[in-house]
Amino acid sequence: MTTIRVPLGERSYAVHLGAGLRRRVAELLPASHTARGRRFLLAADTAVPESFSSAVAKSLSEAGARAVDAVQVPSGEASKCVAVLAALWDAAAAARLDRGDVMVAIGGGVAGDVVGFAAATYMRGIAFVQMPTTVLAMVDSSVGGKTGINLDAGKNLVGAVHQPIAVIADTDALATLPIGEHRSGLAEVVKAAVLADAELFARLAAEPAALLDARSAALATAMARAIGIKADVVSRDEHERGERAVLNLGHTIGHALEAELGYGTIRHGEAVAVGMIAEGHIATALGTGWTAEDQRALEALLRAIGLPIAVALPEGPDPVIARTALDKKARGGEVRYALPHRIGHATPGHPVPAEAARAALRRVALP
Amino acid sequence: MTTIRVPLGERSYAVHLGAGLRRRVAELLPASHTARGRRFLLAADTAVPESFSSAVAKSLSEAGARAVDAVQVPSGEASKCVAVLAALWDAAAAARLDRGDVMVAIGGGVAGDVVGFAAATYMRGIAFVQMPTTVLAMVDSSVGGKTGINLDAGKNLVGAVHQPIAVIADTDALATLPIGEHRSGLAEVVKAAVLADAELFARLAAEPAALLDARSAALATAMARAIGIKADVVSRDEHERGERAVLNLGHTIGHALEAELGYGTIRHGEAVAVGMIAEGHIATALGTGWTAEDQRALEALLRAIGLPIAVALPEGPDPVIARTALDKKARGGEVRYALPHRIGHATPGHPVPAEAARAALRRVALP
Repeated sequence: MTTIRVPLGERSYAVHLGAGLRRRVAELLPASHTARGRRFLLAADTAVPESFSSAVAKSLSEAGARAVDAVQVPSGEASKCVAVLAALWDAAAAARLDRGDVMVAIGGGVAGDVVGFAAATYMRGIAFVQMPTTVLAMVDSSVGGKTGINLDAGKNLVGAVHQPIAVIADTDALATLPIGEHRSGLAEVVKAAVLADAELFARLAAEPAALLDARSAALATAMARAIGIKADVVSRDEHERGERAVLNLGHTIGHALEAELGYGTIRHGEAVAVGMIAEGHIATALGTGWTAEDQRALEALLRAIGLPIAVALPEGPDPVIARTALDKKARGGEVRYALPHRIGHATPGHPVPAEAARAALRRVALP
Repeated sequence: MTTIRVPLGERSYAVHLGAGLRRRVAELLPASHTARGRRFLLAADTAVPESFSSAVAKSLSEAGARAVDAVQVPSGEASKCVAVLAALWDAAAAARLDRGDVMVAIGGGVAGDVVGFAAATYMRGIAFVQMPTTVLAMVDSSVGGKTGINLDAGKNLVGAVHQPIAVIADTDALATLPIGEHRSGLAEVVKAAVLADAELFARLAAEPAALLDARSAALATAMARAIGIKADVVSRDEHERGERAVLNLGHTIGHALEAELGYGTIRHGEAVAVGMIAEGHIATALGTGWTAEDQRALEALLRAIGLPIAVALPEGPDPVIARTALDKKARGGEVRYALPHRIGHATPGHPVPAEAARAALRRVALP
């Protein structure tokens, strides 16, 4: 097991990553929230095997939990909605959770986001534990405290920053993760390397195939490092007043691609991969220092992992560019990008002219 | 106009109280959120005259707001629900509010709570202004940052602490407030006096009739002092870790009475009035120092205002006591009361045996 601290003052917490942790949940809870005498509501994605949640419940019950209730979150992005949120609130009330009790989100980013937001707002905020079961959730969405749901008008338009009291990532869950989901999650590991760690990038590039093996040490090590990078950024800017926006690398274009092509058509990590490539072209055009060589290395790594570096844009670049202006991070219509300077260094806050974005999108558009 | 500061570090704000303030909203916004170039969404209780909201919109538009949209919140406690909340989120998105924009809650406590919670969670929290239009909202719910909605399982089970950037209370709104609502709000003024200000209590007792005149200086002065007391408590304990629970005086029994008798059967302030009387009996029984003379003075003041000091309990005290144990502030089933020691001083955190609560409820039960 590897443990990474997320230092956030009194909201600090640990991310535990390792095999078999579902059976050790009780011992991994922080001292402020030991299981004894406490009520828990486990909210699990329906894609997670029943046996996984049962092991969590068993760990908590054996440690003296007063009650362990369970509720399911239907798998898929559509669950980040008002109806599922309201069902979670009702489930918390039905389980008679009070302010000292704990919700546990078991699943991918969707479950983590909606359950985390339910916990952030039930009784004006109760404790919650993230138990991510996908690569994407382990390295990205479970850490940092962003929680929320989508509206018809856009993704993540409603939410809260609410830090978990612990992140417990049982890597056994990855063994049954579809390979496409696994690859998609690795895009965030590559992103972490590009924005903060050239050495990690070199290690990923040296053995990309091992990253696809759910039980490999290479994967665990890379994920732990990616988590550490995210923890570091988040701890310096919890509420995204500035620096945290660097984590948006690949996401300004990526989110717009997801929205334009339709969620479900392209996976998040695939969109981020193409987004990083497009934003690399923008960085070069704007003279951040990002070179053609950096770009080739990034393309090679993404391809070696099996991630796309181009995408069909039947309507051309303009609808995608229009969507970047709707981004939650846009202010008064101005879109600011995180851009790479070299492998291992990126910064947020770059204004990008629409023409530069258009040229970059043309380069990632499949003929 | 009277201005009361609520000192909360970088979340500090001003409460402005006076006649005609709806026409001066733009000038009363804090420097961080001037109207120019900004989008506003006015969310008004349907009980508020159209002309009131129009005056607010005019003030903002003339000051250069980029857009002023409006949405209505149906009058009544039922609006503190998921459906109205979701409609407000959608309205914010339709108005294209971004993180720098502002929602304005116009109405009583219900509108303030649900609009405040929508603002607390839209884009993970945007600015909002409280424009309370009832005595209750002016002296109590608009100050302190508690926002939220009800679930079927209980009141205020979902919410957030989200401070407004300003509270702008136009006392002209009180001229059209039904007298029953006016009286109900005064219960919170009496509560403020009991818990923190014997001099205010004496002033209220000296001219109770003037308090019922919406345009009297006595009312404005008393409301300003009550707001000051609440601001003082909130600034010392924003997140209700301890001391803030003193504001719950009269509310442990009061909330239980509201729930047991049915919302709509008894007004909030009426329930709080009876709650204060019952809790006075408890305080005397527990030996806090609260005397029979204090109790008589409290009864006399409430009666002079026209508030009830007893209530019909067709099912007897026990169902009410059972409901106190469901209070959001109960922990692990133990109910802790705020209790008065003398007029002008109360403290929170008193464990109260069910037998003492039962005896007190028998004394406030109408034959």
